[in-house]
Amino acid sequence: MNRAEFRKRILAANDEEAARLKRRFDESGTLVVDLVSAPGSGKTSLLEHSAARLADHVRVGAIVGDIATELDAERLAAAGMPSYQIVTGGACHLDARLVSEALQHSRFSSLDVLFIENVGNLVCPASYALGEDLKVALLSVAEGDDKPFKYPAIFTKAAATVITKTDLDGHVSFDRARVRNQVMTLNPSAEVFETSVISGQGVEKWCEFLIENLETKRRTLAHA
Amino acid sequence: MNRAEFRKRILAANDEEAARLKRRFDESGTLVVDLVSAPGSGKTSLLEHSAARLADHVRVGAIVGDIATELDAERLAAAGMPSYQIVTGGACHLDARLVSEALQHSRFSSLDVLFIENVGNLVCPASYALGEDLKVALLSVAEGDDKPFKYPAIFTKAAATVITKTDLDGHVSFDRARVRNQVMTLNPSAEVFETSVISGQGVEKWCEFLIENLETKRRTLAHA
Repeated sequence: MNRAEFRKRILAANDEEAARLKRRFDESGTLVVDLVSAPGSGKTSLLEHSAARLADHVRVGAIVGDIATELDAERLAAAGMPSYQIVTGGACHLDARLVSEALQHSRFSSLDVLFIENVGNLVCPASYALGEDLKVALLSVAEGDDKPFKYPAIFTKAAATVITKTDLDGHVSFDRARVRNQVMTLNPSAEVFETSVISGQGVEKWCEFLIENLETKRRTLAHA
Repeated sequence: MNRAEFRKRILAANDEEAARLKRRFDESGTLVVDLVSAPGSGKTSLLEHSAARLADHVRVGAIVGDIATELDAERLAAAGMPSYQIVTGGACHLDARLVSEALQHSRFSSLDVLFIENVGNLVCPASYALGEDLKVALLSVAEGDDKPFKYPAIFTKAAATVITKTDLDGHVSFDRARVRNQVMTLNPSAEVFETSVISGQGVEKWCEFLIENLETKRRTLAHA
């Protein structure tokens, strides 16, 4: 068996487990959002600043993947979001089996929205379904405006791209129109948000997007 | 064969090819530097701004890995650094075979320093030897000061960590002492540089480090 065949088998097994997860999330009516970005794009910060806004409306929780340390789950718990840390011990992405195990060990009560904060990596997480309703890509303005075309897989799959750290505008060279054009070329139906947890820009809109997606999911399930 | 065994076999095959590359680079007396970072940490920018300084002293070239686009090799060529782009088409890291093929197809004349700019990924490239003398990790101040402990493999292996975009100091929260402590814990002999291609800070020191490493390599080879 060569590398491509082995990879295909791994992905097929993951898809099966992801389908089981998806059924489970549909049964509980939970909207599941897989957050994917490079290290340091601000996934945890965005969730910290979404926690209180969302908690007014819905029950939220997070599963957080990191290669090492439990820092991110601690930050989210401190922000009031129940969180469970997966330490992958080297693996460069989460997979459906790791998420299943995390659900067993976590003590989440019934959730409306479950965030899965993936390992900081703009490449590998794109290939692995986790039973999610939406993949969301984050990109900080400090990372440069050439990234969607350089990492096309995730920006093609992501239902939304969140541009983060817009408070750094003027201090870094970042052409938003260029990013929007690349995202729209890869995925014409993607939403693009511009956010800053420093100024607060866009966080409300991002939270509204999540609530709308939850409501749409619930309506769709009710009619199924 | 399970996943761990398959991975072990892949890495063993890579190590063999990397050893062949290392012998070849030693024969030509070329210092080979594998640059590893998250997407958007500034690998290409650092090379652009090192090109002219280094060209006064040595012959330099670069092999550049990206999943898609040839943007980075074009930027380096424009900065006067002969460059060859590897488009991995999905692969999340370079491997020794890809570097061997790139050396065949590129038309580098004899080089003193060869940079290998890896795919933007702080995880997977850490496991793959490319025949290099040094792995160097880059980390921008915009990515946050918790990264070495969250991505320990590369910061343990890297002979140097280059902190980039220090011109953003004051606009982002980044504790350099915290980063230095993490790096030193993981690799007590690592060098840490602080650089900005905007202000020019640290670029000269970084280039001196490369020249010193080239001279050390040449002396060691002469005495072998």
